[in-house]
Amino acid sequence: MICYEPIGTIYSPFTTPEGMPIQPAGAKDVQGRVEVRPAYEEGLHDLEGFSHIFLVYHFHKVDGFDLTVTPFLDNKPHGLFSTRAPRRPNPVGLSVVRLLSRKENILYIEGVDVLDGTPLLDVKPYAPEFDAPGSVRTGWMEKAKRNVEEQRADNRFK
Amino acid sequence: MICYEPIGTIYSPFTTPEGMPIQPAGAKDVQGRVEVRPAYEEGLHDLEGFSHIFLVYHFHKVDGFDLTVTPFLDNKPHGLFSTRAPRRPNPVGLSVVRLLSRKENILYIEGVDVLDGTPLLDVKPYAPEFDAPGSVRTGWMEKAKRNVEEQRADNRFK
Repeated sequence: MICYEPIGTIYSPFTTPEGMPIQPAGAKDVQGRVEVRPAYEEGLHDLEGFSHIFLVYHFHKVDGFDLTVTPFLDNKPHGLFSTRAPRRPNPVGLSVVRLLSRKENILYIEGVDVLDGTPLLDVKPYAPEFDAPGSVRTGWMEKAKRNVEEQRADNRFK
Repeated sequence: MICYEPIGTIYSPFTTPEGMPIQPAGAKDVQGRVEVRPAYEEGLHDLEGFSHIFLVYHFHKVDGFDLTVTPFLDNKPHGLFSTRAPRRPNPVGLSVVRLLSRKENILYIEGVDVLDGTPLLDVKPYAPEFDAPGSVRTGWMEKAKRNVEEQRADNRFK
């Protein structure tokens, strides 16, 4: 077993899973903040030079998982690991968000698609050189992707 | 405390941290494989439609952390969370790799920048709609980024 202690908490306007955007693309203008434990503030220096950051977090409101799921973006079942569904064997969440500013140990962010009170595991700078491959195929999402921004969560993963 | 059990193991040609590429950009042609636990094979269906995937893993060879580090890409110190250094409060690693093919529970991958035997926590499909923001600033990395592909790890994070 690998055990982690949250380094902070993510705050957002979303207090229940219903009606949440599915990914930051659907939450472009939604603002929130990350409160990192004050003991780690020194580690946040220079982060404000980056326009975007990865938040790695724990889906704290989910329980269990199914290996085949019908994701929000489609009406056909798919293998769980080919989706971003929160109910996973290890419910680790990953979002790229815009970093608006930093004040001491608080990060002000935009494009937040996570539930209020989500435990934060890590913050990493986003760098296209590492993180944005060139020519990309996205399988079953290809057809569905035009609808992403309009999709909202329902009870499916409660 | 949040505890996870690895869902599989990442295999690569890198058996020691020295000489490893720092990120997949420096490991473009390096091939490896991911062995997901057979019990989770069903969850991998449809993943092969995606050209790229996120691997979320545990840096199993690191110990402790410093909040200020001098990363491989620069010769100036920076806040830990503005770097991708493996020694972190929660040593969670994140890489985008190319998915070459899948055979049952085995994923054949390219662009592997992780150590052989690394415990895998999660696999997610990479989708530019979610994961590739448009206009991006990368702070201290801006100057250094031209050198990323030539950089190799040393003993700094042992």
